[in-house]
Amino acid sequence: MTILDGKKISNDIKNEITEEVNKIKERGEKVPHLAAVIVGNGGASLTYVGSKVRACERVGFKSTMVRMSNTTSEVELLDKIEELNNNDEIDGFIVQLPLPPQIDTQKVLMAVDPNKDVDGFHPMNFGKMALDMSTFIPATPFGILELLDRYQVETDGKHTVIIGRSHIVGRPMSILMGRKGFPGNSTVTLTHSHTKNITQITSQADIIISALGVPKFLKAEMVKDDVVIIDVGITRVPDETKEKGYYITGDVDFENVSKKASYITPVPGGVGPMTIAMLLKNTLLARERNSL
Amino acid sequence: MTILDGKKISNDIKNEITEEVNKIKERGEKVPHLAAVIVGNGGASLTYVGSKVRACERVGFKSTMVRMSNTTSEVELLDKIEELNNNDEIDGFIVQLPLPPQIDTQKVLMAVDPNKDVDGFHPMNFGKMALDMSTFIPATPFGILELLDRYQVETDGKHTVIIGRSHIVGRPMSILMGRKGFPGNSTVTLTHSHTKNITQITSQADIIISALGVPKFLKAEMVKDDVVIIDVGITRVPDETKEKGYYITGDVDFENVSKKASYITPVPGGVGPMTIAMLLKNTLLARERNSL
Repeated sequence: MTILDGKKISNDIKNEITEEVNKIKERGEKVPHLAAVIVGNGGASLTYVGSKVRACERVGFKSTMVRMSNTTSEVELLDKIEELNNNDEIDGFIVQLPLPPQIDTQKVLMAVDPNKDVDGFHPMNFGKMALDMSTFIPATPFGILELLDRYQVETDGKHTVIIGRSHIVGRPMSILMGRKGFPGNSTVTLTHSHTKNITQITSQADIIISALGVPKFLKAEMVKDDVVIIDVGITRVPDETKEKGYYITGDVDFENVSKKASYITPVPGGVGPMTIAMLLKNTLLARERNSL
Repeated sequence: MTILDGKKISNDIKNEITEEVNKIKERGEKVPHLAAVIVGNGGASLTYVGSKVRACERVGFKSTMVRMSNTTSEVELLDKIEELNNNDEIDGFIVQLPLPPQIDTQKVLMAVDPNKDVDGFHPMNFGKMALDMSTFIPATPFGILELLDRYQVETDGKHTVIIGRSHIVGRPMSILMGRKGFPGNSTVTLTHSHTKNITQITSQADIIISALGVPKFLKAEMVKDDVVIIDVGITRVPDETKEKGYYITGDVDFENVSKKASYITPVPGGVGPMTIAMLLKNTLLARERNSL
């Protein structure tokens, strides 16, 4: 059994990006610049954006955090996005979700210039991905592809079962794993809340990608020997014996499933750390494409 | 066993559209107007465009056929598309494929205004479809949804297996059948040329949508009882005993599979006739949206 070590691989990627940035600096060119818009300071949003900004600093990117109050109107946010679209200094930017209720999230995501949409959430970029065109792949799916690639996990002709049909993980992964090339060429089954006999389906899978958000949903008796497991679930489970009052777990009963698996991602330290690394990679790509 | 009668349903739809057009005329408003661009006169393109024009006439749409020579340059075609994008008289238009080799098809499809893209091939529209937003669904997938809808074929929680991953049928169907709502909410498996053990997969399917183009590929022993069969394949098989020198067949061994099926589309007369009807429907939608 091999651990798909997202922490290590994401560090490798950040080191590679740092080298790229150093070359850019040596050539006297503009370094990549990522902006993050955050509206309000609810939930974990500020923490997430904070780690993205720190990751930028680490690899030598410029970063700008745009903080707007919780009472920001839709028009004010759309104006800010227009400003970022037109600012040649900014290569790419993200709008941290969720947004407060007075703002139509879809309208906002549609307003982002697809050429600066490093989250890959704009329908133009999503459509390009689905039609096998060059584009920004959303960070979490991109991170999963990168893990499979770096560990040379065979996907061609394999049966990949995806659990969960979210726009940010399940749906794009179902498209990406069935595309031509590597990683890809899998037979892909997309399962979700309306799926019956989920065990019958997972037990046939060569590769399982779970993005459900239900702690320890996937048990050992639901998988076959030598399965490849990608666990995208990250849930905080309250636990008074822990210092923080909770522990983090994935969708997979790691202790038991790992005994049957050929490859498996841990939680934390698997898919999670890859996401920020791939956001940086998309920002680097945005700079290259926009400077053509 | 019930035949999913595409010929009848497509006639029903055309009659419904005719009624809509009559109401539009009564209100003294502009009738829907579809344009079709055809470059060269190779293959069956002219026949296809001809039937689209005739279908427009039948329902009372205006139609314009734009014929360009086989030696048309990419720039000339892009200029023509720009002209159609800016022509307020035209609600929607299609560029008949394939295009001659001197023209980059992707560039051309990208140039069509997404609001006039009644074929639904533009990445913006494809992405909207994949993200559950309102858009133009490509005509063949749209026709399949409509058939399932009109016959009230249950799809919720069913296992739908799709054979073939083309951009115009397999890929979009795999997305549409797994979306929320009806027809949708299926567990979807997308199979293709790299799939192993196809029989093992098809024999578990409640619904099979085949868009492979291999005559009589799907045999009775590959399906279970009461399966729903949607046959998108249309192949001309040479046959000297026929007056035309060929006969038309689908991907499915209809004679034997139909004995096990609960619902099945014939070929011809199943999915085929639905495609033009849905192109008309998209043109009607384009007129409504663009006149808002």
